Amino acid sequence: MSLAEPITCNSPARCTAPYPFADTIVNSSPRLPRGVAAGRGEVELVLDLRHAGRRSVTLRYEWAGDAAQPAVFVAGGISAHRHLAANDRFAEPGWWQAQVGEGRALDPQTHCLLSFDWLGADGALDVVIDPADQADAIAALLDALGVEALHAFVGSSYGAMVGLQFAARHPARLHQLVAISGTHRAHPYASAWRALQRRAVALGALQCDESHGLALARQLAILSYRTPEEFDARFDSVEVAHGRVRVGAEDYLDHCGAKYASNTPPVAFLRLSESIDLQSLEPESINVAVTVVAVEQDRLVPVADARALAQRLRGETRLCVLDSAYGHDAFLKEVDAIGAVLRECLIDANPEVSA
Amino acid sequence: MSLAEPITCNSPARCTAPYPFADTIVNSSPRLPRGVAAGRGEVELVLDLRHAGRRSVTLRYEWAGDAAQPAVFVAGGISAHRHLAANDRFAEPGWWQAQVGEGRALDPQTHCLLSFDWLGADGALDVVIDPADQADAIAALLDALGVEALHAFVGSSYGAMVGLQFAARHPARLHQLVAISGTHRAHPYASAWRALQRRAVALGALQCDESHGLALARQLAILSYRTPEEFDARFDSVEVAHGRVRVGAEDYLDHCGAKYASNTPPVAFLRLSESIDLQSLEPESINVAVTVVAVEQDRLVPVADARALAQRLRGETRLCVLDSAYGHDAFLKEVDAIGAVLRECLIDANPEVSA
Repeated sequence: MSLAEPITCNSPARCTAPYPFADTIVNSSPRLPRGVAAGRGEVELVLDLRHAGRRSVTLRYEWAGDAAQPAVFVAGGISAHRHLAANDRFAEPGWWQAQVGEGRALDPQTHCLLSFDWLGADGALDVVIDPADQADAIAALLDALGVEALHAFVGSSYGAMVGLQFAARHPARLHQLVAISGTHRAHPYASAWRALQRRAVALGALQCDESHGLALARQLAILSYRTPEEFDARFDSVEVAHGRVRVGAEDYLDHCGAKYASNTPPVAFLRLSESIDLQSLEPESINVAVTVVAVEQDRLVPVADARALAQRLRGETRLCVLDSAYGHDAFLKEVDAIGAVLRECLIDANPEVSA
Repeated sequence: MSLAEPITCNSPARCTAPYPFADTIVNSSPRLPRGVAAGRGEVELVLDLRHAGRRSVTLRYEWAGDAAQPAVFVAGGISAHRHLAANDRFAEPGWWQAQVGEGRALDPQTHCLLSFDWLGADGALDVVIDPADQADAIAALLDALGVEALHAFVGSSYGAMVGLQFAARHPARLHQLVAISGTHRAHPYASAWRALQRRAVALGALQCDESHGLALARQLAILSYRTPEEFDARFDSVEVAHGRVRVGAEDYLDHCGAKYASNTPPVAFLRLSESIDLQSLEPESINVAVTVVAVEQDRLVPVADARALAQRLRGETRLCVLDSAYGHDAFLKEVDAIGAVLRECLIDANPEVSA
């Protein structure tokens, strides 16, 4: 669909109420159909981006679970996307297969799970994208889908940052936020690490071969996501072959780099990586219930930042600190611990849907 | 000088005694002159390298302090070199200016301080270089200089690894080792980090511009040397300029990368970086006195590895764990704490030279 008039969403005050043109949108087709287990769609709209001005964008969304159920928006890291898990319509595995599905913590039998491809994920939007822009895009998407308020926003990594922006800018549309491994700011050390990843892409681009640069960037990112503890347990052999030293982790890193480079437009990586570094909000501006989940070994999001966030939030706040050799990637790998937190937040707090 | 016959040094047993041709070397000129405060020289010799076979190499050394005083060999990281500090002959600042000099922990008035440029540092030796090769090169250099035994070997980072190799392979030539921020093995996570630095150089080399790749490699190395705590204290502003995000640390990283790339042959970086990853010895093979210094925040050399090293050494062993926001670079930045350790090891244990 396209709109005759732009939708703007720059001010928290305006965004707590439906957009001026929300009716136009939701009546024109994408409103979530009741009784349909899963589906996908896209909406075109115009957003006023914080740094890049007014832009036409396409938001690609997916849902799983009947629209009559409480809505939960689910967002992951910058390489995550709208397809959370295999469902009746789309059988391929999703990025959060371990947590999403019948009987799992995020269950389409009890909730309507919503998700989208990040603004910028298609590589078509080569501009500076703020995490606040993502939050506003989600609010506009909810308008388009006729979803007034979310039972919960579950965000991990970049998704947690965007969730915090959503909570700050659109509080009336959110009952609770679960923010896993992402806080109110980008840590300066983590930002430096990402800046060097972007430089690897730029170095590759100098020779018109962005895939090598993007693969290296991904490998650097993987190091930041994981921990010395995990690498020590997994890799040890260093070998000398063909006059070069090859360390134990290189096969794994080769695999990670090649897979990512084959799936990801370099522009999407660059703009979403930058976007993480723009995260900056005052936790005091958030007054909804937030569960902050942090991991002791996270090398990108120090636990100290999660503690500071939890202390400064104004609504009902819980802080849950996990131990995991997977560091920042614990949200993907610590299935039981993360699942337990999600169940506690979504099911126990929602008696009408807990069996 | 050059030798008619090669000097080989592959077996610890042989190396505890002078080399077969040591007399030839030391009589032909470089033997350290007594009464001369400082000087430089070079020796050419042939070494049997562990992975690369027999090679002619040039060793470039420097000394400060009268040769009649107890000899201390001093070695730093892979970017360190023979010039430790300004002296009467060579006025430019050295890489360990804070610890070396009159009245400092490493004092040429009380010790004869020896140092050299790492094997491979000139970029002329494009082969796999083992840390054991460096230790054997040092032993050969000591022969050439007529130095029978070292009062101490003070090694930091890669220098600590080489010091441990020296202690294992040439125990009769060493009274004590001070091993700062380097252990008996390369940690698999740190090795992965270095492998990616080498890939940055390779990526740059694809476009025949190694300096960009080398600068990026150095910037990645800097991240591994420092800590989130330091970056958090130093950098915060993220700015959007010319349609791009620039994070607070980028000016600093630019400076570090450009300076390193202008001074360092890419081959030297690659071969010395590889060499770190080849570090592998059994601490039980070391029976001399060792002071192990580790830093709680070191992201390359975990304190757990230093503890394991200290527990497994067979000689008199001390472990000193420091706290420092400079992480792996504490040996360069924590002047007082490192100086205190060095004084305790070198001066207090050597009453005849302590005032």
